[in-house]
Amino acid sequence: MAAPYTLILLRHGQSTWNQENLFTGWVDVRLSEQGVTEAKRAGVLLKDAGLLPDVLHTSVLSRAIQTANLALESADRMWIDVKRSWRLNERHYGGLQGLDKAATQAKFGQEQFMLWRRSYDTPPPVLADDSEFSQVADPRYAGLGDAVPRTECLKDVVERMLPYWHADITDDLRAGKTVLVTAHGNSLRALVKHLDGISDDAIAGLNIPTGIPLVYKLGDDFMPLAPGEYLDPEAAAAGAAAVAAQGASK
Amino acid sequence: MAAPYTLILLRHGQSTWNQENLFTGWVDVRLSEQGVTEAKRAGVLLKDAGLLPDVLHTSVLSRAIQTANLALESADRMWIDVKRSWRLNERHYGGLQGLDKAATQAKFGQEQFMLWRRSYDTPPPVLADDSEFSQVADPRYAGLGDAVPRTECLKDVVERMLPYWHADITDDLRAGKTVLVTAHGNSLRALVKHLDGISDDAIAGLNIPTGIPLVYKLGDDFMPLAPGEYLDPEAAAAGAAAVAAQGASK
Repeated sequence: MAAPYTLILLRHGQSTWNQENLFTGWVDVRLSEQGVTEAKRAGVLLKDAGLLPDVLHTSVLSRAIQTANLALESADRMWIDVKRSWRLNERHYGGLQGLDKAATQAKFGQEQFMLWRRSYDTPPPVLADDSEFSQVADPRYAGLGDAVPRTECLKDVVERMLPYWHADITDDLRAGKTVLVTAHGNSLRALVKHLDGISDDAIAGLNIPTGIPLVYKLGDDFMPLAPGEYLDPEAAAAGAAAVAAQGASK
Repeated sequence: MAAPYTLILLRHGQSTWNQENLFTGWVDVRLSEQGVTEAKRAGVLLKDAGLLPDVLHTSVLSRAIQTANLALESADRMWIDVKRSWRLNERHYGGLQGLDKAATQAKFGQEQFMLWRRSYDTPPPVLADDSEFSQVADPRYAGLGDAVPRTECLKDVVERMLPYWHADITDDLRAGKTVLVTAHGNSLRALVKHLDGISDDAIAGLNIPTGIPLVYKLGDDFMPLAPGEYLDPEAAAAGAAAVAAQGASK
């Protein structure tokens, strides 16, 4: 099929740990009540816009899968093909997983806090394998062997996410399918960095709101023909501002 | 991997049309509130039994997909691979789709009613392509072209389901995966007919209850080493009796 291709990005709705202001990463928490509402609404936005996905790509984390299930239920597209990959997972937050964001900021200071959250290539401290928040024994990552992450910076996410983009996702786009990707704040920042050609420095300023579909039309090179558009731009702007303010708040 | 292989069959929870006593077939109705409860409980039964699916096969009908999503959410296995096929769909009920079961029985008589419901090779009347209950224009069946069913008897279901069993499902079993199949009264009757070697006549007496996992251990030939076992035998017996009584009741 010829371009333009249609790509829809959707960050999962609010999770219980977003709500509690904890660093989550690969810890497999579920959606909060608000997150469920956001996910359902995302499906309504898709349906109202006539944007009907033909295939779904998700991470292997429950909050992204729940979001996709609920959105596709609202959009009446539950039956489309599903592909999952750990390469779409949230950034592994290392030793910060399970910690309170505000307490972490208070303990380590604003500068270190922002370095961990927004630096391109500074990973948080390594998470110990015997931590209750470690994924080394999680059966869904058995195929990774000892390569299961213990921490990641955004650069690491870009490097493990892009091979999946260049192979699996673009394969479906090339076949003419409208592709829905339900994933996470940082795996989607990594993808948008690639699509929009954002520099390693400038990516720190990009925040992606939860639960609002972001739609790209792509050319033959699978790069955007125009800037991506949120289906609800006002809510998206407010949501992005809320993400930027995390940590300080609450 | 060597046998024994583990296969779990799960009929979707009660749908809104089960509840209203309508012939459903390929009409894409959702779960009722009771159906949602049944689906969630099925996941708890799986988890409590330590039966953790590695891969899910579903039909492309929403009620089976909802059932799988909810059961896997309860079982904490949302992240497993998913494969869908129209070959696991419910029997197409032809011109009976959308009709009330009791009214149909009253109009056509008990004998004709039971022939349509339980005869192995007598399909109901053909459904007109311009019926609101037809699937000829449904995008999920676009790949079938003009082969989209207009009616099916159980024999038709066996013939279109078995190729999927022999290829796709047994491939996953052979790889050592615990396979969960969420499907429908008649597509599961077709599979159990094959597994248990039930005759064309005797299959009329087999009823599969909604929402209760049925577990088989299979040998190298992908045939049962022992009879399949419901995870909640008492509820399964009551559920099967309720299915058998449909039509007359309500």
